[in-house]
Amino acid sequence: MRHVAPSTVRRLSAYLRVLEELEGRGDGTISSRGLAQRAGTTSAQVRKDLSYFGSFGKRGLGYSIPELLLQLRKILGLDRSWGVAVIGAGRIGQALARYPKFASKGFDVRAVFDRDRAKIGRRWDELEVLDVAELPRVVREKRIEIVILATDPDGAQAVAEQAVAAGVRAILNFAPVKLDLGPEVVVNSVNMVPELESLSFALTHMGEAGS
Amino acid sequence: MRHVAPSTVRRLSAYLRVLEELEGRGDGTISSRGLAQRAGTTSAQVRKDLSYFGSFGKRGLGYSIPELLLQLRKILGLDRSWGVAVIGAGRIGQALARYPKFASKGFDVRAVFDRDRAKIGRRWDELEVLDVAELPRVVREKRIEIVILATDPDGAQAVAEQAVAAGVRAILNFAPVKLDLGPEVVVNSVNMVPELESLSFALTHMGEAGS
Repeated sequence: MRHVAPSTVRRLSAYLRVLEELEGRGDGTISSRGLAQRAGTTSAQVRKDLSYFGSFGKRGLGYSIPELLLQLRKILGLDRSWGVAVIGAGRIGQALARYPKFASKGFDVRAVFDRDRAKIGRRWDELEVLDVAELPRVVREKRIEIVILATDPDGAQAVAEQAVAAGVRAILNFAPVKLDLGPEVVVNSVNMVPELESLSFALTHMGEAGS
Repeated sequence: MRHVAPSTVRRLSAYLRVLEELEGRGDGTISSRGLAQRAGTTSAQVRKDLSYFGSFGKRGLGYSIPELLLQLRKILGLDRSWGVAVIGAGRIGQALARYPKFASKGFDVRAVFDRDRAKIGRRWDELEVLDVAELPRVVREKRIEIVILATDPDGAQAVAEQAVAAGVRAILNFAPVKLDLGPEVVVNSVNMVPELESLSFALTHMGEAGS
């Protein structure tokens, strides 16, 4: 497969959301134009994004919603479940470990770790906060493939390296620090500041239009 | 100003992050190519994105980092501070109300609300959880312009309408529900699932390449 840009993968997720909603309504087919409008892009972009992965839809008939859902889930790796661990049992870690939509989408949070003695042993529903020293054993035993990193910035690189040494190849990074883990590991860093910046941009230019 | 796509605004935020890092290192100028590489895009895209807002940089000399920082902050509305309120004092609301980078970027969380009697009156550092019934008064008195919505899905639309009635025009929505607030209000909905989907995509196709 050719290299697929992160922005393409984001759009595939957006198409999946749209299709799930349409399926919930009982719709059977959708045109590339209808899908594009609901996902905030163009029909040419929809066709291009899907063309990386094969041939979908019939000219003039559009896409079969159940079929395209099946294919998109397969492309995104959502036709199976994934073992997830959260490292860092602070507020963000706790919010993420219990984020209700993860489990329903196949992201199964199986362990939570911290290095703080005061937090180790606490129970969150069926999870217990474990000592981060147990990471290698737990990654192996619970088949952890994705780590959500929600530690302080100072410990983030070291604990991410421990996760990688234990076999983890994908990290969702909430720690405000750039991780350097080599080309074998995929890191997706989440920063909430741009989410607010897009609002301050809109408010700023809303004001201009009204003046 | 012409309509600016959300993806353009995202890239402006990314350019800002890169420039802040370079300024921290003491660099004076950057080429559009250097900026593009660090922000994960092309130099043509950098020039196009900036061209919406005026003329920056000198041919052959690149951009002055302090000057472009100043301009980008102005464009994004970051040359001032914004009054922010969090509605919903659960785990996600708490994590966001105390997200340390917000204040340093000019997003000043001035109030937290909940409708749950058990949560009202709790103190989080210098914030006190207020009854959501006080929203109109507090929005006015504390000059709240942006609401971070972190409620359960069932109450989200009604409380968002209350915020809008009180004068709020921008909402960062963490509630897993589509808000319908009319064209005068900008809503940015955050969903953590696509963040994990981009990892499951990468892991899935990593495996393929290795087989």
